[in-house]
Formats: sequence, C-alpha cells, structure tokens
Amino acid sequence: MRRLEQATGLSRGAIFHHFRDKESLFIALAEDDARRMADVVATQGLVQLMRDLLAGSRKLQHEATSMREDRDWLGAHLEVSRRLRTDPDFRPRWAEQSQALTAATRQRLRRQLEAGKLRTDVPVEVLAQFLELALEGLLSKLAMGLPPDDLEPVLDMVEASVRQ
Amino acid sequence: MRRLEQATGLSRGAIFHHFRDKESLFIALAEDDARRMADVVATQGLVQLMRDLLAGSRKLQHEATSMREDRDWLGAHLEVSRRLRTDPDFRPRWAEQSQALTAATRQRLRRQLEAGKLRTDVPVEVLAQFLELALEGLLSKLAMGLPPDDLEPVLDMVEASVRQ
Repeated sequence: MRRLEQATGLSRGAIFHHFRDKESLFIALAEDDARRMADVVATQGLVQLMRDLLAGSRKLQHEATSMREDRDWLGAHLEVSRRLRTDPDFRPRWAEQSQALTAATRQRLRRQLEAGKLRTDVPVEVLAQFLELALEGLLSKLAMGLPPDDLEPVLDMVEASVRQ
Repeated sequence: MRRLEQATGLSRGAIFHHFRDKESLFIALAEDDARRMADVVATQGLVQLMRDLLAGSRKLQHEATSMREDRDWLGAHLEVSRRLRTDPDFRPRWAEQSQALTAATRQRLRRQLEAGKLRTDVPVEVLAQFLELALEGLLSKLAMGLPPDDLEPVLDMVEASVRQ
C-alpha cells in the first residue's frame, strides 16, 4: 500500500476513494497483470511470456531490492490461486479476466498455424492448453521462490513441441 | 484433525503426543504424500502420476463428499508452495523430501532411455525438468479447483514429447 502511494503520488484516501476497498484494489491490480500478460502473448507468444517471466525472476535474485515488485506480482498470482480454490464468488469474476489471456493465446496460435509454423497433427486447442499448463507450472515454481536455473532448455523444448 | 482422529482411531492427545505440534504433523503428512508420489513415478512414470491425479480430481467432482481427502491433499500442496515462498527455514527441510520424487523421476527416465523408449536428442535432465514443469502446472490447476476437463490430450502430448 505504501509503495502504491509512492508510485501513484496519490494519498491512501484518494486511492481507496477510487477503489472502494482492498478487495477491489487487489482485483484491479490482478486484472492489470492479466492484461499485460495478454499483450505479450498477442504480439510475441506464450513461450516468450514465459521467457520474460524467467528473465525477470533471475534479475530478481541478483537485484533483490529493486525488483521487489515482481516478487509481489508472484505473490498476487498465488493469492489469485488461493481465492479460486476457496472463494466461489471469485471464480466467475476472475474467469472474465483470465479470458483475455486465453483468447490471446488461441488467436496467436491460429496465426502461427496459418503461417505454417505450427504442427498440424494436434488441434490448436490442445496446443493452447499444453502451453497454459507449462505457464501455470512456471508461475507456480517462480512463486515458490525456487531457483529458476537452467529452465531455458525446458522452454526451448516446450516451444519445439508446438512447432513443426 | 477430526478426520485424522477417526481414521487412526487415536485421540487428539495421542496424535499430538506423537507429532509434538501441528507443524510436525503437517510435515509428516506432506512427506507421506511425496513418498506416495515417488512410488508411482518409480514404477509407472511421472505422466502416469499426472493421469492418476487427473482421474482422482475428476472423481472428486462427481463424488463431492467421499473424496474430500484429495481436495485436502491439494490444499496441502498449496500450503507447501506458500511456505516455500514465505518461510526460509522450510525450504531446506522440504528439499530433502521432494528429493525422493526428483530421484525417482530421473531413475525412471534413465531406464526408459536404456529401453530405447526415450528421445535421445535432449538430455535426460531436461526431459525430467520438462515433466516436472507439467506436473507443477497440473497440481496448480487442480489446487485452484478449476475443471480438469479435457486434459488427457494434453498429457498425451506431454508424454509424446519425451518419447521417441
């Protein structure tokens, strides 16, 4: 919260005036993350998003202080996971948001397919779910704070698995 | 805790006498899960473990009451994730336990490689990390309580990606 006041130059009162309560603020921040991720996926693909996350987390280990926000972002991801599991009201609300990422992934894959870059023996929907499973695994690993060493060859393998 | 008393036929006092505190009990349960998973991996492979988890979670949706323990088990997985992230003392303690699963995965892959069933153009270590990323993604998805529908074709794809 303090960091948010510093970043926006707004007072706590002004921020809460805008966001009603902490719950709405959390949702707004999580939605913002989902949108940023969808943008990367739309222009560069889901594997590139994973590479960016991996690079960001490695930077995090070396510049422990300046990258605190990334760590917070991963904390927010875990919090979304927790709520999806425990709060039935949160699920439909979040489904709408994660929709952007889901749609961007499928759109990008269809374009790659048309460009002849994708394998054609597996439906695009399965390829999309395969990539989303890998992303979920990476987010989970990073959120645990495990050393993300040597995952590049794994991401290369993920990428090769959807290409032809 | 109540379910544990019923299952063991021991009193709460006797259980805590044995396990000192809730923390030790949680660790013991999580260790037991890790061992069970390592057993499946050693004999049937990590993809089969994922198929079992998926089948278990689908059963959970249909028999909501009788399978509560599986849901608890996923909760325990999330709790392990949370602690890895937030509790520096927990990390070395847990590393020892997850070691069993890691070792079983590599041993199984080496045997598959000798049997000529594995692709040879990617190091076994990368194949192992690839499978572990998929497992992490699946556990995360299941823990969120998202519908695990139609993930079989994705697991087929994961399996095909490590075979030759």
